[in-house]
Amino acid sequence: MPTPTALPLPSVRFTGGLWHDRIQLIREVTLPRQWQALNDAIPDAPPSRAVRNLRIAAGCEDGEHYGLCFQDSDLAKWTEAASYRIALAPNEAMARALDEVVALYVAAQDDDGYLHTYTQLRAPDQRWTNLRDLHELYCAGHLIEAAVAHHEATGSRDLLEVGIKFADLLVRTFGYGEGQLRAYPGHPEVELALVRLAAATGDGRYLDLAEFFVRTRGSEEPKYFAEEAERRGEAEPPIYVHGDDQAYWQAHRPPPDQAEPRGHAVRAMYLYAAMADLARERGDAGLAASCRRLWDDMVARHLYIIGGVGSDGPGGEKFSAPYDLPDDRSYAETCAAIGLVFWARRMLDLELDARYTEVLERALYNNVLAGISLDGCHYFYVNPLATQPRETHRRYDCRMVKTQRVPWFGCACCPPNVARLLGSLGQYAVSRTERGLALHLFAALSIKWEGWTLRLETDYPWSGSVEIKVESAPTGVSELAWRASGPTQGASWTLNGAALDATPTQGYLRVAREWQTGDVLAAELPLPVQRMRAHPSLTAAAGRVALQRGPLVYAVEEIDHGPELSSLGVTRSAALEATVPADAPWAGVVTIGGEAVREAAGSELYHADKLAERETTTLRAVPYAWWGNRGEGEMRIWIRDYES
Amino acid sequence: MPTPTALPLPSVRFTGGLWHDRIQLIREVTLPRQWQALNDAIPDAPPSRAVRNLRIAAGCEDGEHYGLCFQDSDLAKWTEAASYRIALAPNEAMARALDEVVALYVAAQDDDGYLHTYTQLRAPDQRWTNLRDLHELYCAGHLIEAAVAHHEATGSRDLLEVGIKFADLLVRTFGYGEGQLRAYPGHPEVELALVRLAAATGDGRYLDLAEFFVRTRGSEEPKYFAEEAERRGEAEPPIYVHGDDQAYWQAHRPPPDQAEPRGHAVRAMYLYAAMADLARERGDAGLAASCRRLWDDMVARHLYIIGGVGSDGPGGEKFSAPYDLPDDRSYAETCAAIGLVFWARRMLDLELDARYTEVLERALYNNVLAGISLDGCHYFYVNPLATQPRETHRRYDCRMVKTQRVPWFGCACCPPNVARLLGSLGQYAVSRTERGLALHLFAALSIKWEGWTLRLETDYPWSGSVEIKVESAPTGVSELAWRASGPTQGASWTLNGAALDATPTQGYLRVAREWQTGDVLAAELPLPVQRMRAHPSLTAAAGRVALQRGPLVYAVEEIDHGPELSSLGVTRSAALEATVPADAPWAGVVTIGGEAVREAAGSELYHADKLAERETTTLRAVPYAWWGNRGEGEMRIWIRDYES
Repeated sequence: MPTPTALPLPSVRFTGGLWHDRIQLIREVTLPRQWQALNDAIPDAPPSRAVRNLRIAAGCEDGEHYGLCFQDSDLAKWTEAASYRIALAPNEAMARALDEVVALYVAAQDDDGYLHTYTQLRAPDQRWTNLRDLHELYCAGHLIEAAVAHHEATGSRDLLEVGIKFADLLVRTFGYGEGQLRAYPGHPEVELALVRLAAATGDGRYLDLAEFFVRTRGSEEPKYFAEEAERRGEAEPPIYVHGDDQAYWQAHRPPPDQAEPRGHAVRAMYLYAAMADLARERGDAGLAASCRRLWDDMVARHLYIIGGVGSDGPGGEKFSAPYDLPDDRSYAETCAAIGLVFWARRMLDLELDARYTEVLERALYNNVLAGISLDGCHYFYVNPLATQPRETHRRYDCRMVKTQRVPWFGCACCPPNVARLLGSLGQYAVSRTERGLALHLFAALSIKWEGWTLRLETDYPWSGSVEIKVESAPTGVSELAWRASGPTQGASWTLNGAALDATPTQGYLRVAREWQTGDVLAAELPLPVQRMRAHPSLTAAAGRVALQRGPLVYAVEEIDHGPELSSLGVTRSAALEATVPADAPWAGVVTIGGEAVREAAGSELYHADKLAERETTTLRAVPYAWWGNRGEGEMRIWIRDYES
Repeated sequence: MPTPTALPLPSVRFTGGLWHDRIQLIREVTLPRQWQALNDAIPDAPPSRAVRNLRIAAGCEDGEHYGLCFQDSDLAKWTEAASYRIALAPNEAMARALDEVVALYVAAQDDDGYLHTYTQLRAPDQRWTNLRDLHELYCAGHLIEAAVAHHEATGSRDLLEVGIKFADLLVRTFGYGEGQLRAYPGHPEVELALVRLAAATGDGRYLDLAEFFVRTRGSEEPKYFAEEAERRGEAEPPIYVHGDDQAYWQAHRPPPDQAEPRGHAVRAMYLYAAMADLARERGDAGLAASCRRLWDDMVARHLYIIGGVGSDGPGGEKFSAPYDLPDDRSYAETCAAIGLVFWARRMLDLELDARYTEVLERALYNNVLAGISLDGCHYFYVNPLATQPRETHRRYDCRMVKTQRVPWFGCACCPPNVARLLGSLGQYAVSRTERGLALHLFAALSIKWEGWTLRLETDYPWSGSVEIKVESAPTGVSELAWRASGPTQGASWTLNGAALDATPTQGYLRVAREWQTGDVLAAELPLPVQRMRAHPSLTAAAGRVALQRGPLVYAVEEIDHGPELSSLGVTRSAALEATVPADAPWAGVVTIGGEAVREAAGSELYHADKLAERETTTLRAVPYAWWGNRGEGEMRIWIRDYES
C-alpha cells in the first residue's frame, strides 16, 4: 500500500522569504480571486462557468454546459488548493466556499458515481465513448485528488466519499474482466489520483487500477484510441497530432518501453510521474529504469533552461525533436513545468538523488513561478524565453504566446494548478526517508514531525547563508540528508561550528547520528553569477549565454535596456555582479549588473565585410520569473556571448 | 498606351553558361515533364487534373472539377512558358500540346467570355460572389498572359481572342457604372495581364480596368471583401488572416497609401508590380513614390538575404513584422521571389536604378533558382534558409517546409511560374531605354534589336571577366547602360582597351556615343568572397555570417560537414577561398573553402562558466540554389561568426 514520503502539510511551514511570501499571496489574493473567476465574476476575463456547470448538473440551476470538456478540472484543482489553504490556516470564507462546492459535487454525482458535467449535460448516453479526447478520467482524477486533500484538511468524508464512489465506478468499468473496458485515458492524471486515494483509504484496488491504466496504455494493436475513433465513425485524427500519431498521447508503445519523452508535454509529465509512483509502490526495477531513461533523455535533450518542457506549441503543446528548444516560440506551458515538479518529486521518492532535485528547483524557481504575476492574479500559460511583441503579435505561429499575463484563460488549466502546487509546497521541501528526513529546498521553514523540530534559516536564493537548527530530534540514531549539488554545491558545511566530515552521496549529504537539541548545521552557499551555455545543437542559444545565480535564471527586459534586445549581450571579460541596486525594481530581489554591449543598428538589412559598431550600456538582468511585471516589452534569456 | 521596355523574346539569346543551361533544361526536361504533371501522368505525384478540368468544361469529358479554385492557373502559366519555348526554338511536340490546350480553352469558354473551370463546373450561378477567395480574376489574369504570349510566339490569334473575349467581359462587369461591380480581386494578377493585353492590342480599356482594380482596392468602407462575405452569410474571416484583417489582401487601405509590405507575399508582389506598371503608364509621380516607399521598406526590413519575401508561412504565407526573418521556418515562397522579380523589373522601367537590379539578381540567383532542382523536375515551394530534418519533420509550424524537392504539389503554383520566368529571362536581362539599351544581367548572351548586335561574353557568376562586344550599332549617338553596382561594383571598365571615363548614375554606367562595330567594353569584376552580416534586429542572423560571392549566397550542407550544423562557422581571420575543388560536387560550380570551426558536443544540455571545445574542419559552402540536390540533410546559410 502506498506510503507517502511527504510530511503532513501542517508539519512543514515556510517562515519567511520568497516562498513564504508567495504562499501568503496565493492564500490571500490568488485563491479568493480564482473563486471569483470560477464564478464568472471577473470583468474582462473569459468566463469559466465551472461552478455554474456543476450547479446545473446538481439541479440547482437551469442551463447548458459551457466550455471545454475539462472545465470541471479547474474547479477541482481549486478545491484541492483551497483545502491546502485551510489545512495550513483556517479561514471561514474559504471554508464556506468549500462547503458550497462539496455540496454541489455530492448533488451532481450520478447514482453510480459518475461525475463529468460536460458529458452529463451534453451527452449522458455517451459516457466513455471518447477516452482519447473527452477528459472524463482526467476530471475524475482531479476530483479524487481534491477529495483526498479536502479530507486531509478538514477531516470531513463528504467529498472523499464522492471520490471513492467515482473510483469504485472506475474499478467496475475498467479492467481485463468481461464487459470491462481495456482502455486508458487520453490525458493521464487519474493514475496519480488513484495512487493517492489508495494511500488515503488503504484500498489496494485503486492502486491496481492505476497500474492497469499505465500497463494497458499503447500495449495492444490496434491501439485503443484508433478502435474507439472507428466506433465513433471518425475518419481523421485531430490535426495537432501531425506526424505523431499515438505518441501524442504517449500511446505509441507501452510506457515501460518508451525511451524519449514524446507528445503532449503535460500528459507526458503526468504519465511519467504515475510510472514513478508505480515503480516505487510495486518495487518494479524495470519500470524504475524506464523512468530514469525517460528522465535522462528529457534532461539531456528536451529541457528548457527555465525547467520547462514542450517546445512545439502549435503542434499540440508537445515535445519536439531533440534539442529543438526555440526561445521565441517556446511553449513551456506552466502546467507542464508543474507536471515536471510532480515527476521529479516522485523520482526522489524512488531514489534520493539530487539530479532530480536540481531540475525540480529549476522548474519551480523559473517556469512555475513565471506562471503567476507578482500581484497574484495574472497568469502565463505559455512561457516564452524571448519575446518581441511586434513579432509575437504578428506571427501566426506565436498566436498562443501572450506578451503579458492575463487574469484568466478560456482554457484555464494553469492558474489553479499553480495554486495547488505552491499551496502544498512544504511537501516538496522535505521528505521522510527510511532513516530520517531529507531536505530538498533551502528556504526559511520549520519542520515538526515525529520527534523532529527543525528550523531552517536562510534567505536563499537571494543569499547563500544557511543554518539548519535542531530544536528537537528523535532519540537514537537518525539520518538527516540535505542537498549538496547544483547551486548548493561547493559549500563548506559545519556542525556546531566544526567542519563537517561528510561527502555527498548522489548529491545529498547524509549524516546519521544521535541528533541533539541545539545542533546547528551551517554553510555559506557561494551563489556566483554564472554564464550558462548550451549544447551546440540548441540553435536558439548558439553564440549566447544565459545568466544564472543559484536556481534563478535571469532575463533582460526592454524597460531596463530599451528595445531591440536581440544583440544585447556581455563580453567574456565583463564583470557581472549580483546586486540589489538603489533603484531596484523590487525590494530585496537580486538583479545582475555589469557592462552590457549591443550592436548599433545601421539602416542596412545586410552589409558586407564590415562589423557592426558596438555600444555599451548598463546591464540589469532580473530573475526570469519576475519578467513582464512592469508592462509590455521585449524580454530575452539568451543574450549575446561576445568573445571580446 | 503601354510601351514594353523588354525586347521581343527572340532578340535576346543566352549563348552559354548558367542561364543558358538552365533555360535548356526548362525546355527539354521541365516543360515536357510539367505537361505530364498537368495530365496526371507522373506516378507518386499529387494529381493536377488541370487539363482534365478544362476538358470537362470543354465538354470533351465527363466528370467533376478537381483541386483548388486556382487549378486553372497552373495550366495557363505552363501555356505561357511553352509559348516562350516555341518562340525561341520551334518544337513540334510542344506546338501540338499547345494546339490541344488552345482548342480546349476555346471550347471551354462560356459564350460571354467567362472561363474558370472551378466555378463553371461547381457553381456556375455563383460567378463573382467570392472575389476574395475564389481566384476567378487571378485565373483570368494568367489566361490573358498566356494568350498574349501565345500570340507573340505563334502569330495565331486563337488564344488571344479567348483572352480578349474574357477581358471584354471583365470590362463590362467591373467598374463604377450602374450594375457594375466596384470590386477587386483577392489575389492580384489580372492587373498585370490587363496592362500586357493593352500593349498587345492597343486597347486602352484594359489599362483603364487595371487601374480601376488598383484604385478601388481597399478604398471604400465597408471593405468590399467584408460586404461580399456578409452577402454570402459568412461569419468569420479565414483563420490565416489572423490579426491582419484586410491587410492579408493588401486591402486595408488604398494601395497608394500603403507604406509597409503586408499580407500574403505573392499577392503583395503582384499588386506592387501592377502599381509600378500604372505609375509608369500614367506618369503618376505619386503612385511611383508609393512604389518606392514600399520597395525601400521591403528592402530595409522584410527581405531575406536570398532575395525572398514572406516569413510567416503558417500565418497564410505572409509578411511578418519588420526584421522577423527566421531561417528555419522561413517561407520565402518561390512564387513570391518570382513576383519580386516582376516588381523589380517594373521598377527598373520606372527609373533605371541599380538598387532594383541588385534585388532582382539576388532573388533570381538564389530564391528563384533554388525553387527547381538540378534535374529540372523537382521543386521547392517553401525555401528555408536552414533545415534540420529531425526538427522540420517533427514541428507542426514547419509542416509546410519540405526538406527535399518534390515532383509536384497539390498546390502547384510555383513550378510553372519558374518555367515562365526562366523561359522569358531575356526580357529581364536587357531593356530598351529612351536612348538605347540597358543591360541588367551579366551573362553570355547575344542581343539583336533595331540596329544593335551585341554579344556579352562572360561566365559570371563563376568568374568576373566580362566583355561587351558591339557587332553592330544604330547610326548616330545612342546610349548603352550597364550595371556597375553590387557584385559588379569596383570593376575598372575599358573601352577598346583604354580606361573608360565614366561614373555610374544610380548604379548604372551610361555611355552615349556613336557606337561602332568592333567596340569592346571589358572589365574584370572582382567577386571576392564576402562575409555578410545582418541588422542586429534580425535575430536568426545574430552572431552569424552568410557567405556571398557575386550574386550567389552560399550555404553549408550536412553532406559536406556532417550533422549538427548549428555551431559550424568561420573565424574572422579565416581565409576563405572561391574554388572549384577537384572533387567538386558539380562541374564548374564555384564553392567556398577554408577552415571551418564548430563546437564539440558534450553530453550536457547546459553547462556553467565553461567554453565549448572547438573542432576545426574543412569548409565547403555551396551556392544556396544548389542545396538539397544530394539527398536529405541539414542545411544552413547563417553560420557562426567566431570572433577568434
